[in-house]
Amino acid sequence: MRVVVVGGGAAGMTAASRIKATKPDWEVIVFEETNFVSHAPCGIPYVVEGVSRADHLMYYPVEFFRKERNIDVRINSKVVEAGEGYVRVRENGNENKYEWDRLLIANGALPKVPKVEGAELENVVTIRHPAFAGKLKKMVDEAKRIVIVGAGYLGVEMAEAIASLGKTATVIEFLDQPLPNLDREIAELVKVEMSKRVDLRLNEAVKAFEGKEKVERVITDKSSYECDLAIVATGVRPNVEIAKMLGCKIGETGAIWVDEKMRTSVENVFAAGDCAETKHMVTGKRVWIPLAPPANKMGYVAGVNIAGGDLEFPGVLGTQLTKFFELEIGSTGLSEKAAKAEGFEVKATTIKARTRVHYYPGGRDITLKVVADKEGRILGAQAVGSEVAMRINVFAAMIQAKFKARDVFFSDLAYAPPLTPIWDPIIVSARTLRF
Amino acid sequence: MRVVVVGGGAAGMTAASRIKATKPDWEVIVFEETNFVSHAPCGIPYVVEGVSRADHLMYYPVEFFRKERNIDVRINSKVVEAGEGYVRVRENGNENKYEWDRLLIANGALPKVPKVEGAELENVVTIRHPAFAGKLKKMVDEAKRIVIVGAGYLGVEMAEAIASLGKTATVIEFLDQPLPNLDREIAELVKVEMSKRVDLRLNEAVKAFEGKEKVERVITDKSSYECDLAIVATGVRPNVEIAKMLGCKIGETGAIWVDEKMRTSVENVFAAGDCAETKHMVTGKRVWIPLAPPANKMGYVAGVNIAGGDLEFPGVLGTQLTKFFELEIGSTGLSEKAAKAEGFEVKATTIKARTRVHYYPGGRDITLKVVADKEGRILGAQAVGSEVAMRINVFAAMIQAKFKARDVFFSDLAYAPPLTPIWDPIIVSARTLRF
Repeated sequence: MRVVVVGGGAAGMTAASRIKATKPDWEVIVFEETNFVSHAPCGIPYVVEGVSRADHLMYYPVEFFRKERNIDVRINSKVVEAGEGYVRVRENGNENKYEWDRLLIANGALPKVPKVEGAELENVVTIRHPAFAGKLKKMVDEAKRIVIVGAGYLGVEMAEAIASLGKTATVIEFLDQPLPNLDREIAELVKVEMSKRVDLRLNEAVKAFEGKEKVERVITDKSSYECDLAIVATGVRPNVEIAKMLGCKIGETGAIWVDEKMRTSVENVFAAGDCAETKHMVTGKRVWIPLAPPANKMGYVAGVNIAGGDLEFPGVLGTQLTKFFELEIGSTGLSEKAAKAEGFEVKATTIKARTRVHYYPGGRDITLKVVADKEGRILGAQAVGSEVAMRINVFAAMIQAKFKARDVFFSDLAYAPPLTPIWDPIIVSARTLRF
Repeated sequence: MRVVVVGGGAAGMTAASRIKATKPDWEVIVFEETNFVSHAPCGIPYVVEGVSRADHLMYYPVEFFRKERNIDVRINSKVVEAGEGYVRVRENGNENKYEWDRLLIANGALPKVPKVEGAELENVVTIRHPAFAGKLKKMVDEAKRIVIVGAGYLGVEMAEAIASLGKTATVIEFLDQPLPNLDREIAELVKVEMSKRVDLRLNEAVKAFEGKEKVERVITDKSSYECDLAIVATGVRPNVEIAKMLGCKIGETGAIWVDEKMRTSVENVFAAGDCAETKHMVTGKRVWIPLAPPANKMGYVAGVNIAGGDLEFPGVLGTQLTKFFELEIGSTGLSEKAAKAEGFEVKATTIKARTRVHYYPGGRDITLKVVADKEGRILGAQAVGSEVAMRINVFAAMIQAKFKARDVFFSDLAYAPPLTPIWDPIIVSARTLRF
């Protein structure tokens, strides 16, 4: 049996590893377009910030997968064509054809570029692949004035990176808040913090990039911003080209349709990671939320099933986490606006709390918003401040478990004066929701 | 209606507040033996350590409850007798009788004192009540050599306090490990850390305290330790005296028997907090685990039900958390040994992980042990190292939700390079348990 994996990122390498662990005799070939495998795109802002090294943005090096896991990893190898039982690969200047018995499409997502004039200018860049992190870092270091287009998670992280380098960053966001998935009053806290460090421009649409060869200014519907580097972080789109060549169904989200076993609509063709859609655990609806932890797990599930096992991926909550300097920002499940848009009758509570008992020094603020349906079932949580990851993770487990506010209130959370408050904000939020 | 509350601690004041919130017209009298209410005994070690102030070990001052919540709080008032419909109270040098329609017993637990010779000597002290924290701090400050008897949670916390003051502490534990509720290999990590800072003596039984008026040495079955202060932290026992006077059933655990509504066996008499037993959420068995967060919630439930509401307390997991210098230590649910003692066929996994992705600086070690039954249902978790509270809290929610290893693996936990690893130790532990 030969399995071909298209894409050596999180999903692809996790799947390949799982297949070889189960079926050591099977041949597993991974074709990766760059020279990075098991790469960590989430680390790019921290390379730019100078706290992480570009060549560290791999979980394991190529040789590890070749020698320790016996996976035939081909780097700098781009799959340019796929058909029933074969792929055509451009590698070392040649094109070769490979046959497969099972195929996994795991070639991720691609950055969106706004369709405006001048987007092709030099120094208008997207944040793509860890393989380009070093180059991006160099461009940022050489730039004096930088415009970031988009205040989503990546935009916020790039803003931190650039501000922490002491450079002037202007962040232009089309919407009226940063981090559009958050409810307004939570995003407001992020906005306040961002405004201290960067020139945050909300409700502005980029109309053009101008310059001779390199970008010199960004033109919006309201103003014009001089710059020598424009970083475009306006989101990503699923990479569905190979899937389309194979005739795989594309889902309503625009990503590759897969079932719970990561099977596409075409026999023996699987898809996992940022190119594939999945199910939302709260709404049950199909969603496309390209994030690293689910990508890894989708890869794991695909690997188990390709190797003849039987495992189902239950879906995602869209859990997200980031930070802007000292401010941690996280969310899981549905925001209030998303819950209402889904037709839920919503009860919501927002509390501000401290992360320690009053008598132990070092307590810091956390603002927690919890959204429930009218029966008190928890639909989502958002938090901003300190020790956000803990609260978001607890809520992620609780939402998966379909907890109601009462269950949350009675959760037996840990308490120690140097580490937590006696009534954790999680418990307090449940109490204020009533039950 | 008049409600009398015996004891102004966590459970008592939470209940009193709840009753007045629901029934503002009812009279609620709280009799508290000391001059502290809503007190925080967990803070005593940190007063000794010098990071917290003794007079801050109240969540709210007496006046707050009197003025803001209209509760008739009587401090320095000890209930010395109770019978059907009345209590007798010693206050201001007098004894007064009060009638009640409903009574809540919330007078907590009392320190156990080993029954050995010399236990009555001066400077042999127990850690009792926040009201005595200032005095204890003074005694520790004046002492040069201190023996701590007992290496449970309180013993470990006192050891940190004394070692951080630069004083010599000898910790004597009867058992062969500190923190007896932890499995051996987890406790071993605590032992290693403690041994760097204090003179930890395991497998030693205290036989006597010796001295003229003040203690001068502690005699064990193996050795003798000079000291000018001996702190006894060998556990607590439930305060059941008042309950017995009323004829309330005492449970098999030795604490006051209550049902899910915090009703004792005697009509109109409720009990909550450290004097009452409850149910273990994993085993369903009756347990007595006196800890602050459940005490608060039992008080809340008692308050709701005393005021005519209908709320059930679902029980506890025995979640505990503490730290010894940089080492955080936590557990929830059953340890492997406890699970085996309960008759479970156990699968367990212990993993060592880092708290960050490899490429982001600041990652630290965490060791996580997870215990499951043979079907993979999670029974308990223990962790030692950094960012333990998060993992323990997530597992507390997951155990309450009856998650199996597979559910844990698919939990959609948050990821951001500066804050968490990509495969959280929680997820890794589930993967190693297999499913």
